[in-house]
Amino acid sequence: MAVFIALVHFPVIDKNEKTVTTSVTNFDIHDISRCAKTYGVRRFYLVTPVPSQQWFAKRIIRHWTEGFGAEYNPTRQEAMGVISLANDLVEVVDEITKETGRSPIFIATSAKSRANMITYKEMREKISGAEEDYCILFGTGWGLHASVLEEVDYFLEPITGTGDYNHLSVRSAVAITLDRLFGR
Amino acid sequence: MAVFIALVHFPVIDKNEKTVTTSVTNFDIHDISRCAKTYGVRRFYLVTPVPSQQWFAKRIIRHWTEGFGAEYNPTRQEAMGVISLANDLVEVVDEITKETGRSPIFIATSAKSRANMITYKEMREKISGAEEDYCILFGTGWGLHASVLEEVDYFLEPITGTGDYNHLSVRSAVAITLDRLFGR
Repeated sequence: MAVFIALVHFPVIDKNEKTVTTSVTNFDIHDISRCAKTYGVRRFYLVTPVPSQQWFAKRIIRHWTEGFGAEYNPTRQEAMGVISLANDLVEVVDEITKETGRSPIFIATSAKSRANMITYKEMREKISGAEEDYCILFGTGWGLHASVLEEVDYFLEPITGTGDYNHLSVRSAVAITLDRLFGR
Repeated sequence: MAVFIALVHFPVIDKNEKTVTTSVTNFDIHDISRCAKTYGVRRFYLVTPVPSQQWFAKRIIRHWTEGFGAEYNPTRQEAMGVISLANDLVEVVDEITKETGRSPIFIATSAKSRANMITYKEMREKISGAEEDYCILFGTGWGLHASVLEEVDYFLEPITGTGDYNHLSVRSAVAITLDRLFGR
């Protein structure tokens, strides 16, 4: 069993539910790769079709894996090593299939409730000791586009805290999701 | 019972264990205030004695609570409303005491193990239904200075994932800590 995660910059929605492409964020690269490394994620796919955004992401990753950052902070180098760039989710499937020999089970995350959601507890039990591979999808902006949600195998329930407010950053959502599914 | 958190920029240590003051980070303000709001934290203290850093933090907070950001994104406005600036932890105690009439119990977090740590499970049980107030401390840089650790009531165990790698960003650590202590 291997776990993959993908941070999707297209297709996602904006606050008016319009389809948009979001920008790659430096802190997403740092924080999410460190979470991925902490919780044993095999690969963290940064999904964007925009060449200039891929160039920007590559510059950051190279600084920490080969440049000054690699010597200055080896733990950052180790974390950044799990990142791969992908143009779209089709490429993510292709890459994972190339690596593992099979397509993974896709799990979508969202801050909004919908029908047929699976709880964190149920998902944790399902994954624990499973044979299959899993790929967890996180949307930037205001969340994953409906066309992505239609194609996944599971929808994880939204993360709830103590009240009604559920507007976490995608970085916090990734941290909490991985801890709930794989934390000791 | 009320819960407070404080993000400490001084005194903290650098990677050579030297005492340093770190810079305030825009993404800490955004991500941690949103986590605080999600998990019912009463106040999030941003602790720095540096006037220019306080000015920088105030500019960001004002943009989202009074400026363009308040209208553009009301949920961000709501989150930023929990932030207070403080020069040091003495001021944090004073402010909390002014608000609640008593000093809170202090809990330190760290990525390093030490003697007499309390587990997340134990701390969650202790806080649940408690009468007292709690203030959870998070260190920036390479962690809280020893002089802070000496004064606290509890040390939370480090967050562990699936392996040995435990170099989460302070933003991820706050998200996971609050979820473990207060998440449903």
